[in-house]
Amino acid sequence: MIRLNNDYSQGAHPAVLKALTETNGESHSGYGIDDWCEKAAQEIKSHLDCPDAAVHFLVGGTQANFIAIAAALRPYQSAVCADSGHIHAHETGAVEHIGHKITTLPSPDGKLTAAQVAAIAENYWTSPIREHITQPRLVYISFPTEYGSLYSLQELTDLHMVCEKYGMYLYIDGARMGYGLAASRDVTLRDLAGLADMFTIGGTKCGALFGEALVITNPALTPDFRSYIKQNGAMLAKGWLLGVQFCALFENGLYFDICRKAVAQALQIRAAFAAHGIPAYVDSPTNQQFVILSHKQIEALEEKYVFEPDHNVNSTHMCVRFCTSWYTSDEDVHALVEDIEKL
Amino acid sequence: MIRLNNDYSQGAHPAVLKALTETNGESHSGYGIDDWCEKAAQEIKSHLDCPDAAVHFLVGGTQANFIAIAAALRPYQSAVCADSGHIHAHETGAVEHIGHKITTLPSPDGKLTAAQVAAIAENYWTSPIREHITQPRLVYISFPTEYGSLYSLQELTDLHMVCEKYGMYLYIDGARMGYGLAASRDVTLRDLAGLADMFTIGGTKCGALFGEALVITNPALTPDFRSYIKQNGAMLAKGWLLGVQFCALFENGLYFDICRKAVAQALQIRAAFAAHGIPAYVDSPTNQQFVILSHKQIEALEEKYVFEPDHNVNSTHMCVRFCTSWYTSDEDVHALVEDIEKL
Amino acid sequence: MIRLNNDYSQGAHPAVLKALTETNGESHSGYGIDDWCEKAAQEIKSHLDCPDAAVHFLVGGTQANFIAIAAALRPYQSAVCADSGHIHAHETGAVEHIGHKITTLPSPDGKLTAAQVAAIAENYWTSPIREHITQPRLVYISFPTEYGSLYSLQELTDLHMVCEKYGMYLYIDGARMGYGLAASRDVTLRDLAGLADMFTIGGTKCGALFGEALVITNPALTPDFRSYIKQNGAMLAKGWLLGVQFCALFENGLYFDICRKAVAQALQIRAAFAAHGIPAYVDSPTNQQFVILSHKQIEALEEKYVFEPDHNVNSTHMCVRFCTSWYTSDEDVHALVEDIEKL
Amino acid sequence: MIRLNNDYSQGAHPAVLKALTETNGESHSGYGIDDWCEKAAQEIKSHLDCPDAAVHFLVGGTQANFIAIAAALRPYQSAVCADSGHIHAHETGAVEHIGHKITTLPSPDGKLTAAQVAAIAENYWTSPIREHITQPRLVYISFPTEYGSLYSLQELTDLHMVCEKYGMYLYIDGARMGYGLAASRDVTLRDLAGLADMFTIGGTKCGALFGEALVITNPALTPDFRSYIKQNGAMLAKGWLLGVQFCALFENGLYFDICRKAVAQALQIRAAFAAHGIPAYVDSPTNQQFVILSHKQIEALEEKYVFEPDHNVNSTHMCVRFCTSWYTSDEDVHALVEDIEKL
Repeated sequence: MIRLNNDYSQGAHPAVLKALTETNGESHSGYGIDDWCEKAAQEIKSHLDCPDAAVHFLVGGTQANFIAIAAALRPYQSAVCADSGHIHAHETGAVEHIGHKITTLPSPDGKLTAAQVAAIAENYWTSPIREHITQPRLVYISFPTEYGSLYSLQELTDLHMVCEKYGMYLYIDGARMGYGLAASRDVTLRDLAGLADMFTIGGTKCGALFGEALVITNPALTPDFRSYIKQNGAMLAKGWLLGVQFCALFENGLYFDICRKAVAQALQIRAAFAAHGIPAYVDSPTNQQFVILSHKQIEALEEKYVFEPDHNVNSTHMCVRFCTSWYTSDEDVHALVEDIEKL
Repeated sequence: MIRLNNDYSQGAHPAVLKALTETNGESHSGYGIDDWCEKAAQEIKSHLDCPDAAVHFLVGGTQANFIAIAAALRPYQSAVCADSGHIHAHETGAVEHIGHKITTLPSPDGKLTAAQVAAIAENYWTSPIREHITQPRLVYISFPTEYGSLYSLQELTDLHMVCEKYGMYLYIDGARMGYGLAASRDVTLRDLAGLADMFTIGGTKCGALFGEALVITNPALTPDFRSYIKQNGAMLAKGWLLGVQFCALFENGLYFDICRKAVAQALQIRAAFAAHGIPAYVDSPTNQQFVILSHKQIEALEEKYVFEPDHNVNSTHMCVRFCTSWYTSDEDVHALVEDIEKL
Repeated sequence: MIRLNNDYSQGAHPAVLKALTETNGESHSGYGIDDWCEKAAQEIKSHLDCPDAAVHFLVGGTQANFIAIAAALRPYQSAVCADSGHIHAHETGAVEHIGHKITTLPSPDGKLTAAQVAAIAENYWTSPIREHITQPRLVYISFPTEYGSLYSLQELTDLHMVCEKYGMYLYIDGARMGYGLAASRDVTLRDLAGLADMFTIGGTKCGALFGEALVITNPALTPDFRSYIKQNGAMLAKGWLLGVQFCALFENGLYFDICRKAVAQALQIRAAFAAHGIPAYVDSPTNQQFVILSHKQIEALEEKYVFEPDHNVNSTHMCVRFCTSWYTSDEDVHALVEDIEKL
Repeated sequence: MIRLNNDYSQGAHPAVLKALTETNGESHSGYGIDDWCEKAAQEIKSHLDCPDAAVHFLVGGTQANFIAIAAALRPYQSAVCADSGHIHAHETGAVEHIGHKITTLPSPDGKLTAAQVAAIAENYWTSPIREHITQPRLVYISFPTEYGSLYSLQELTDLHMVCEKYGMYLYIDGARMGYGLAASRDVTLRDLAGLADMFTIGGTKCGALFGEALVITNPALTPDFRSYIKQNGAMLAKGWLLGVQFCALFENGLYFDICRKAVAQALQIRAAFAAHGIPAYVDSPTNQQFVILSHKQIEALEEKYVFEPDHNVNSTHMCVRFCTSWYTSDEDVHALVEDIEKL
């Protein structure tokens, strides 16, 4: 079987594993206070114009999301996200568990618009009974989104402006950041650092065994951040393992190279579906392709491929996900493209 | 000005105040362990077929709602309610603050259907990744709803059945219970006690200075409930004040009588609007009437009446609330009816 | 039986009840936005030199304590208090429930010293692993303490200085503030307002049916405070009931007068025990007297008096509390004094 | 420099790293639903008599501790531990952050006694005001303790009995379980499984790159446990990495062998200090040795060794920790032994 169901079903990129192996005998201070984490932070910051940004390395994405939100919000403040937002739809109420409401906004393509955000902020700040509702204080978006779609630089700038206007933080979940940057026509890490207050750079889905880098550019959010990490059980004892991996990924641009390859593969798959008249559920330029297949088409493809059911569209069709990754082979992609043509 | 904006803008019914005055010199044990609370609980239970029900008296409705939910849910479990549900829309994220997600369902009239609840439960229990989403475990409804509408006995029975099927608690917020019972054609307190796991009987809006009775009929939810009350700062030091008030309200059926009067008044107002061709936003048989007025009509009525804006319908019309209560006078109602005819 | 077990076993002072009765027919806006609350806040502020202080009225003390702490602390910050502190010993973990550790310090008389606070702050700020421990950020003291003892102006000033030095808030629980001020030789409300960031003025135990005034003098703690109140179910719908009561208590100095009387009575009881050689557990100049009685003495007094067991001292003696209040009669005190002499 | 400051400053045992390398190219389902986790769970269960035990693999110890406690307690319930307990002293209030009070008991050697636990439970259950205090519901102990000391089988049995008597869960933090089992004269994993409701088997400090196995033997605590894991951001995307490591550690008894070696080394160090008249702070039979050194002795040893300051004993002496581990070399131990003799 050819696995195209997700981008986290294999271990690490060989270069990452090699780095872990080579450094295995070294001794380091624990809890992320070590040379490797320091070096990895510098590597990441070399892509930004934020010399004072704080970079923390965490094991997982849910962890990074709720800890960042815990550090940003007071108890009566809430986060705003698309109804497909990972913090709302797939994290078992982690944000609510630490005490914050999430206000969701409808989004057919996984993206929020500045106008939507402005409307919810305006509603709060003009409400005569605003003590009875939560204060929207943080906007959560993902880049790319859960549906693979991407914000343009203009869209991000608009979101940034509306956040600034209403005193809201902009947080960007970059679990698949590498694929997003590879696919974007105009957005760079430098841009994100200038527009977001915090964002993550995902390792788990982009070549690492595990690990997410959380970049905090807003100095109001940096104090005592490590206390939040420890309090939530997210301070890895052998913290240098994260630094070592991110060094391996960011030295020589490996991170960008391997994601670029996966995006190119995904576009081949997208083109094959399109050429065959199979509709995309959302227009995605990244490594995730959501398409609407008939049950018969699904049965045919299931013989050779593992892909992921997303939701039923109607009684005869389903939306499913095909996902490439840094470890997807060209052979597998070509096989799929050929089989799509035969559907 | 004639105030018809809400049902909590005056003190207590004279009989309640009289009872507080007469008992002012008595000495009692604190924290709700006293004869008056015991007597009030018995009065309430005389309306139910649940000799083992627990009855707790709390100062406010938000308090009662979130404490009941805190006692019912484990951290990964969520409450389900209509998008107009008070816990979602008007309690500053109190439920999320104590750690639980609220899943909202669209409802044009403030009511949930059994089918909606079944769908969300079914979705959870059939999900292959259910550890990634919260478990719907409690259904919150209000009787009457925030829009004044009422569930029929059949609708409540259907909700009860679906809750039983999927292992969910049914919680009924009865902040305006007196008006609901007065208006209902077929639902009694006895029915509610048989169908709900917990429900409140509102005092604040129905004749008391303050106070809500929380009735717990499901024995799984009764243990150590007073610990939840104290932990959340809701254990009134002079707890007998609540018992005294509920005794005054439930002796001789005062609670039902005064609410019945208010409902009759509301129906006069409803009839006047209808006769004049002014549409109701929601069909309400209770003391709250939501109607859609033009800005010009609003201006005309605002000269003599205080009523509550709810939301803009379009650029020329607004939905507003007229609310009668135990203290509304017939004169005021007649005046309004006459003025509606002149619109 | 003569009840001297606590100071919250009767209703309201007649003047408070009269005010509630006289205003019962008035109509007011809900949720504490009304003329009475405004007037009561002004009355209280007339005793302070803090024109910008915020005054909020809450129903109960546990409520006031944990909401104030919720507004003051970030998740990784903790409160410091004496091991007899009410938030630690008698509030069912309310502070921990909203997420904050309480660090307790040993105190034989219920008081904290500035040196104790300095030591714990110093320990944190010099710790090489301070991300692994909570940051002490708020000092909770009670005035008078749970054992009836009082801080002198110098002691409070020292605590204020140490808080300032280490960036900590000073919060004073004044559930029995009236008795404390009546007994203190040198502390006034004006002093407290100058030294504390927040403090409460208790109504429940000092003449009100219920109610605590929370005074916030630190402007960093005032924003959106009403959102915290609502979120925690502590916003009384008929908020003016609190304003009315505090107006009645503070007009003409009633609050101070009735507490002064109770303190004088308590000192008579203290003198009687001392004259009879019965040791005080803690030296208290306020309305609570903790004495160590033999089981035989307890039996003798229990025939006529209700008083409160506190803890066993040894196999033959127990520490018990006698508590006067605004409603204690001179006759009852004289009777007790005589009976002590007969022990 | 020779590092003897802790047992988590190196990567993984070579066998663990080898297993990770060999499996790096495999594809697996995510989130711990994979063959390796299943196999590792079976390996661990082969050491127990609990066929129905649940075994979950988590990345870190703080994580395991607070999630286990979150799953065990209702909001008004508290955990009991020694004042040196890791959850109290070194986890930044993680347990309080999720809402639970920790009640600490004094312990000079890091151990709790059954009598201490009984006293606190008795105090709660006999209290007339128990709604005002938290219910002790879980006993947290560590094996070995934070000071390296060990419970005997009898002591554990006594704790188990007292927990059973008062309806409390017994939770054992086994972050250094391997060293504890290697050092114990009479306690086995089988015993722990029979006596505790939940316990962890630490990997991070015992040969793994990272990872703790949480064993739940009490069926009341198993339902939906994975939801707690996900909610708290502790569900590793590539969960098989944990299974692979624990398989490598438990196959052929590697886990026990490498810890046994480290304990033998620690005992050599202990003997050297004792022979030289240097007092141990706590009598420890495990890999952590706490001794009291003069500042001069510390200076002398600091030239060649890294060890950890614990606390000041007086103005001239300090308690410090020497810690062996699976990667400590015999050469280093011999060097230290010789240098101790020269002190």
